[in-house]
Amino acid sequence: MRILFLGDIVGRTGREAVTEVVPNLRRDLRLDLVVVNGENASHGFGLSLAIARDLFAAGVDVVTLGNHAWDRKDLVGQIDAEPRIIRPANYPPGTPGQGSVVVELVDGRKALVINVMGRQFMEALDDPFRAVTDIMARHRLGVTVHAVVVDIHAEASSEKWAMGHVLDGRASLVVGTHTHTPTADHRILPAGTAYQTDAGMCGDYDSVIGMGKDAAIARFLRRMPGERLQPAEGVATVAGMMVETDDATGLARRMAPLRIGGLLAPTMPDF
Amino acid sequence: MRILFLGDIVGRTGREAVTEVVPNLRRDLRLDLVVVNGENASHGFGLSLAIARDLFAAGVDVVTLGNHAWDRKDLVGQIDAEPRIIRPANYPPGTPGQGSVVVELVDGRKALVINVMGRQFMEALDDPFRAVTDIMARHRLGVTVHAVVVDIHAEASSEKWAMGHVLDGRASLVVGTHTHTPTADHRILPAGTAYQTDAGMCGDYDSVIGMGKDAAIARFLRRMPGERLQPAEGVATVAGMMVETDDATGLARRMAPLRIGGLLAPTMPDF
Amino acid sequence: MRILFLGDIVGRTGREAVTEVVPNLRRDLRLDLVVVNGENASHGFGLSLAIARDLFAAGVDVVTLGNHAWDRKDLVGQIDAEPRIIRPANYPPGTPGQGSVVVELVDGRKALVINVMGRQFMEALDDPFRAVTDIMARHRLGVTVHAVVVDIHAEASSEKWAMGHVLDGRASLVVGTHTHTPTADHRILPAGTAYQTDAGMCGDYDSVIGMGKDAAIARFLRRMPGERLQPAEGVATVAGMMVETDDATGLARRMAPLRIGGLLAPTMPDF
Amino acid sequence: MRILFLGDIVGRTGREAVTEVVPNLRRDLRLDLVVVNGENASHGFGLSLAIARDLFAAGVDVVTLGNHAWDRKDLVGQIDAEPRIIRPANYPPGTPGQGSVVVELVDGRKALVINVMGRQFMEALDDPFRAVTDIMARHRLGVTVHAVVVDIHAEASSEKWAMGHVLDGRASLVVGTHTHTPTADHRILPAGTAYQTDAGMCGDYDSVIGMGKDAAIARFLRRMPGERLQPAEGVATVAGMMVETDDATGLARRMAPLRIGGLLAPTMPDF
Ligand SMILES: [Fe+2]
Ligand SMILES: [Fe+2]
Ligand SMILES: [Fe+2]
Ligand SMILES: [Fe+2]
Ligand SMILES: [Fe+2]
Ligand SMILES: [Fe+2]
Ligand SMILES: [Fe+2]
Ligand SMILES: [Fe+2]
Repeated sequence: MRILFLGDIVGRTGREAVTEVVPNLRRDLRLDLVVVNGENASHGFGLSLAIARDLFAAGVDVVTLGNHAWDRKDLVGQIDAEPRIIRPANYPPGTPGQGSVVVELVDGRKALVINVMGRQFMEALDDPFRAVTDIMARHRLGVTVHAVVVDIHAEASSEKWAMGHVLDGRASLVVGTHTHTPTADHRILPAGTAYQTDAGMCGDYDSVIGMGKDAAIARFLRRMPGERLQPAEGVATVAGMMVETDDATGLARRMAPLRIGGLLAPTMPDF
Repeated sequence: MRILFLGDIVGRTGREAVTEVVPNLRRDLRLDLVVVNGENASHGFGLSLAIARDLFAAGVDVVTLGNHAWDRKDLVGQIDAEPRIIRPANYPPGTPGQGSVVVELVDGRKALVINVMGRQFMEALDDPFRAVTDIMARHRLGVTVHAVVVDIHAEASSEKWAMGHVLDGRASLVVGTHTHTPTADHRILPAGTAYQTDAGMCGDYDSVIGMGKDAAIARFLRRMPGERLQPAEGVATVAGMMVETDDATGLARRMAPLRIGGLLAPTMPDF
Repeated sequence: MRILFLGDIVGRTGREAVTEVVPNLRRDLRLDLVVVNGENASHGFGLSLAIARDLFAAGVDVVTLGNHAWDRKDLVGQIDAEPRIIRPANYPPGTPGQGSVVVELVDGRKALVINVMGRQFMEALDDPFRAVTDIMARHRLGVTVHAVVVDIHAEASSEKWAMGHVLDGRASLVVGTHTHTPTADHRILPAGTAYQTDAGMCGDYDSVIGMGKDAAIARFLRRMPGERLQPAEGVATVAGMMVETDDATGLARRMAPLRIGGLLAPTMPDF
Repeated sequence: MRILFLGDIVGRTGREAVTEVVPNLRRDLRLDLVVVNGENASHGFGLSLAIARDLFAAGVDVVTLGNHAWDRKDLVGQIDAEPRIIRPANYPPGTPGQGSVVVELVDGRKALVINVMGRQFMEALDDPFRAVTDIMARHRLGVTVHAVVVDIHAEASSEKWAMGHVLDGRASLVVGTHTHTPTADHRILPAGTAYQTDAGMCGDYDSVIGMGKDAAIARFLRRMPGERLQPAEGVATVAGMMVETDDATGLARRMAPLRIGGLLAPTMPDF
C-alpha cells in the first residue's frame, strides 16, 4: 500500500496548499491512502466540518487531530457523524468521536488509522500506550488490516521515539505531529515500522510554528496578552512523508520524506 | 567563515563518532569553526573535563551545554578554567562558567558563540531572549566578530523559532538542541541568519533519544523507578549542519545539514 | 503598625463581602494598612479599575495581583495611573505598572508593599527572589519604611516557604496567594517576619477555588471545552490575616488569621 | 466512627512525633481508625517497611503514599505483602500494591481507605476521578463499609476541591496531602463529606516543606545541584484532622483540625 501522511495543516495557506497538491500526488505517486493532521486547519485553531470536507474532496482519506481538537466547538457535536475525522484515542471515555478508523480502499484493502496524544508537557489524558495497544488488539496487521498508521501527537521527542519502538513490527507507520517542525530522522525501525518523530506542518514557515511572527514573539518577550495569534499567510510548505508497505505483512518497504513549496528544502519520494 | 555545528553528543558511541569524524571534516570541508553540544557526553549525563579535552583535541573549538550542564558535579568547579566550555547564559548571576565565548581563529578572525536555554517546559531560568540580546550588545557582527553562533537549548519548537526570528540578521547561525532529533527545516531566514530548530543528536538512534530502549520505554509504560537509563551503544549518527558565512557581514551564504553514519539517511554539504 | 491582608477576591460575592467588612474592620481592629489581592475580582478573571476604586473607597490601601493580572486587558493601559494597584514585580522590564508601592499612612508612617509571582508550575517570569531583593535594597525596614508586606503569588508551597525564610527579619509579613485556600500555618518566623503560606480567597467556598462547581469539575472529568467558568455566587468568606508590627523594627509582634462569613470556621484576631 | 488522619510524615522528627502521640490520641480521643500519609517518612523520601511497621505498632491502621511512593525501591517488592500500606490507585495496571484497603475494626465495623494522586502539575497517571469511582462502585457507604476515607495526594488546590465535591455524600472524609501545609478550610460539604484541602505535614515546620532550609532555598536561588536535601530535624508538629461519622450513613457528623507540638498554632478536637 502506498501511503501519504501530512502534518498539521495551519490556516488558509496550509489548507490551500494541501487541497491543491493532494489530487496530483494521489495520481503521480499512485497513493492508496492519504492521512493528514487537521488540528490547526481552521484559522490555526481546530477543524471545521466544512474544511474537513474540502480535504476529503481533495483526496484525503482520514483527518487526525490533537490538543486543538475542540478549538472549534461545533466539531464536538459533529464528529460522531464523520468517522473519517478521528481525535486522540486517549481522551476519556464518553468523549465524542473515535480515536481510530478502519478505511476501506477502492480495491477492498483496509487500513487502520489511529490518533493518540502524548502526555509529557501536555494535558492529563489516559495512557497513550495502552490506548493504542487496546485498539490494535482488535486488529491484525497483514490479516484483518493491510496497514496501520499511528499519528502520535506529542511534545516530547522521547515519548514519540518510545511509541515508535513499542509499535515496531505492529504498525506500518508511526509518525509524530504537534511540533510543526519536520524531523530528519525518518527511517524504518528494526522490525519494519516506518517512523518519523514529526511530520512537520503544512503552512507558512516564515512564522512561529505557523502563526504570525510578531504576535508570537511578543508572547516570549513580554508576559502580557498581546495581539491575537493569527496564522501566517505566506506561501505554505506541504510537509509529510510517504511509505510503501508490503500488503502481505503490512510492514514498510520504503519510506521517504516529502516537502513541497514554501521555504523548506524540497524533497520528493523517488519511488 | 565555514562553521560546523553538531548536536548533543550522547555517551561513548556519540563521543567516539565525533572525535573520529571531526578531524576529517575539518580538513575536507575546510572548516574554520567547530561547535558541539556536549551536555550528554558523559554516559548520557553531563560533561567531564577529560571528555571536553578529547573533543578539543579532535578539533572542536567550543562545547555548549544545556539542562544537563551540571550532571557531572565536578564540572561546576572546573568550568571557569576552561572558557571554551560554555553553559546556558541565562543561568542566574553567580553561576560558574560563562554563557558565551569569543574564539579567535588561527587567521585572526573572531567568532562569538552563545549558549542559552529555553524556558517552555523547562527549568525556571532568566529570560533567554534578554540574555542573548545583552551578550550581543557587546559585539557587532561583521565588525568586532566575524560570526555569531547561538545554541538555543530548548524543548518547545515555538521558542526556538521565535529565537531564530529575533536574531535574524544579527547572528550567523541560530540552532536548537535538546530534543535529540534533527529537524529538516534548515534554512536561511529572510535577514540572513542560518536556522535549524534542532541539530539532532550524535549518538545511537536505535534508542529513546540516545538512551537504551527498554529502560526508557518502561518509564512510559509503568510509573515506577526501573532499570537505570544508560546510553545506547550501537553505531552513532553524527548529526548537525554546516554554514558558510560572508565575513564582511557575518551572515549566512549557504547552509546544509550533515548526517554521517548510523541509522539516519546520510547527507553531506556539497559546498 | 496594624496590618490586614486579604487573599484573592473572587467575583461579585467576594467583592461585596470585602467592601462590606473592611470599613468595620478598619475601625474595630484599628487597622493602619489594608492590602488585598484582587486578581480575580472582576468576574473571576482580572481586575477592573472601577472595582479597584470601590476597594479603595472601602478602605483598602493597596491591591495586589497575580497570574490573572492582565485578564482585564483595559488594566494594561490604566495601571500606570493608579500606583496603589501593583502587579508582580518579576514581570519583564517594560511591563506596565509597578511591582511595589510605598504608601504613606495618615500619620506619616510608611509601608512598602511588594507583589511577586512564583515560577514553579507557573509562567516563565524573572527570578522572584532577586526581584524582591532588588526592591528591598532601596528601603530599610524600621528606618525608611515602617513595614514591608510581600504577597508571593505562587502555586508551590515550597517556593512560598522559601520566600518566607529568605525574607525573614527583613519583612513584616510574607504571605502567599493563588491557591485560594487559606493555610493554617500562620506563624512568626525566627527572625520576626509573620508568615502564612496562603491567605485563602475572599469568595464562595462552595465552589472549585471560587468558580462554579459543575463547570470546574467537568474540566477534570472530561477533557473538552465545556460550560464557561463563572464565579460561584453563594455567601463569601472573607479570608486573610492580621499582623501587628513594632514600628521601631518593622517586625511582627502578633499575628492571627481572620475568616468572616460563609462556610469556613470563623476566626478573628484577639488583639 | 471516630477517625484521625495525619498528613505526610517527614523524616525522623515526624515519625517520632507521630509514634509518640498516636497511642495517646487513640485512647484520649477514642479513635477507631488512624490513617497517616507516609510518603516522606524515610529520611524525606519514601517509606521503608520497617518504618511502616513502627507506625502500625503505634496504632496506625493504614499508611497512604504519593509521588514519593517508590523512592525506597525496596518497597516495590514488599508492598504486596502489607495491604495496610496503600499507594495511589491510579498508577497503571500492574503496579505493585493496591490503591485501597478495607480495614476491619476490632468491633467488626469496616472502613475503606483509598489513596489517589492528582495529575495537575504532577506525573502522567490514570484518571484519579475514575480510579476512585471504580473502587467505590464495589462498596456501599453505610452498608458494606461504615466509613470511606480518601487521601487525594495532589498539588493543585482546584483538583482537590473538585475531588471533594465529586465524592460529597459518598465518602466520610476527603483529605488532601502533598503540599505539606495544613489548610484552614476544613468543613463538612453539603452532602455530608468532611473535607480539608491539605492535612499538612508531620514534621519540622522550620524548614522548606520539611527539608532543611539552606539546601532547599539554594535550589531556588541558584539553578545548580547543591547540597543534598535532608529533612529538618527540629521539633515536629503533628498535623491532621479528626472526623466523627454516623455509622448508619457513613457521613461526617463533626470534624476538627488537630495540630500538636512544634511551631504551628496548636488545636485539638473538642469532641
Ligand atoms: Fe498540537
Ligand atoms: Fe498543531
Ligand atoms: Fe537537554
Ligand atoms: Fe541533550
Ligand atoms: Fe487567584
Ligand atoms: Fe493566581
Ligand atoms: Fe509529601
Ligand atoms: Fe507528595
